[in-house]
Amino acid sequence: MTERILVAPADLLGDGVFETIDLRPTGPWLLDQHLSRLAGSAAILGLPAPPLPEIRARIGAIAGTGALRVVYTRDVLHVSVSPVPTGVTRERRDGIRVISADQGISVRRPPWSVTAAKSLSYAENFAARRWATRQDADDLIWLSIEGYVREAPTASVVWQTGDELCTVPPAEAGILPGITAAHLLSLAPSMGLRPAERMVTLGELAAADTIWLASSLRGLAEVTMLDRTPRPRSPWTPRLLDALGFVSG
Amino acid sequence: MTERILVAPADLLGDGVFETIDLRPTGPWLLDQHLSRLAGSAAILGLPAPPLPEIRARIGAIAGTGALRVVYTRDVLHVSVSPVPTGVTRERRDGIRVISADQGISVRRPPWSVTAAKSLSYAENFAARRWATRQDADDLIWLSIEGYVREAPTASVVWQTGDELCTVPPAEAGILPGITAAHLLSLAPSMGLRPAERMVTLGELAAADTIWLASSLRGLAEVTMLDRTPRPRSPWTPRLLDALGFVSG
Repeated sequence: MTERILVAPADLLGDGVFETIDLRPTGPWLLDQHLSRLAGSAAILGLPAPPLPEIRARIGAIAGTGALRVVYTRDVLHVSVSPVPTGVTRERRDGIRVISADQGISVRRPPWSVTAAKSLSYAENFAARRWATRQDADDLIWLSIEGYVREAPTASVVWQTGDELCTVPPAEAGILPGITAAHLLSLAPSMGLRPAERMVTLGELAAADTIWLASSLRGLAEVTMLDRTPRPRSPWTPRLLDALGFVSG
Repeated sequence: MTERILVAPADLLGDGVFETIDLRPTGPWLLDQHLSRLAGSAAILGLPAPPLPEIRARIGAIAGTGALRVVYTRDVLHVSVSPVPTGVTRERRDGIRVISADQGISVRRPPWSVTAAKSLSYAENFAARRWATRQDADDLIWLSIEGYVREAPTASVVWQTGDELCTVPPAEAGILPGITAAHLLSLAPSMGLRPAERMVTLGELAAADTIWLASSLRGLAEVTMLDRTPRPRSPWTPRLLDALGFVSG
């Protein structure tokens, strides 16, 4: 069901923005947040403001469930749905093996930086995940030159120590604001957890009780092995997945 | 004459490679080098080897002159020609005002890095040039965190001091190998100049007799102002443009 779209060659140069949304039987999950981030990404790239009412109308016309994608460039507005990648359910249930790696970039981003936008320029993200696979891992966590945890190529890093549930502060780390992570932290108090944003080193992250990668389609994938060191499974994983409306187990 | 092409939404994620070639009355300029770099870029991104005979055939079928673009992704092979951007002739003749800026990345690139490939993920490159324009400059030169000159968003940096003609060593700087710069350096001895590759700081670059940005369509654009300091025009600019087969003046 891969729909094809007609574009100008210049549209292939990654100079646009996108969102991936979990289209559930109850509707597109966290739609307002995704549309708000799409508009923010567009502003960072100097694109005209996206036509949100039209995007909402197009999304509203789509039936079924799956991975809803909105693509917006200077020339193209595309909304489509495709099956949620296989593997996502398994990762929610069984967790993932993750390695960390220095990304070779500073948390101090230059003034033109697009790292806080969900831009279409994903070559480095894909390449990093392919590299992780070659290292016999499922995913990787990027560290800044200064040694701070930034993000994963397609997910935010979330961790829990005692009753504190944490993620990385997006502005300070120069990363994309994670919608699933922010939503999870907003639910933390209702589960007896205290939400916090912290810049952490790899050592501090490794000392946490539990680490997850958070993203729209996966929800939460528990890190069961970090840099080849196994980690005990957490009773929090099914609880948090439940709170996010994902069926665990 | 902007041709449109049919792609899958996933093709818009910048996970492919491209080349831009100066299509001259005498044929596509430095075609072998561009196809070789295309293949190298594809390898870096883990793409299948591009079908070079087919690409040559498609290019051979194109008449006229202009900016020839080859786009290659996991799903798309596209060859088209469009007019050379206006401004290019003016930049060759009048030179450009350039500012330098810390790119916030290290010359030591991570193992998955695609910065040595001409990938379709150009959002950061475009954003940097838009930023330079807002600083009342025509282009910018990226510096690494360590303070080394890397490249411009769409060009290589070339400079001359006395009888030495230099560029940045691509592998050491973690940048795209510049075809125009390499070709120019190969012509240096015939013009009484010694070619060299050097890692330089901004101060060392500013002390050069002349600085140029080199790329396929512009050829050479002389830097007439660096970080708001005017630089004297060089008698070498028309000579080097001549050697590259560009009409100067």
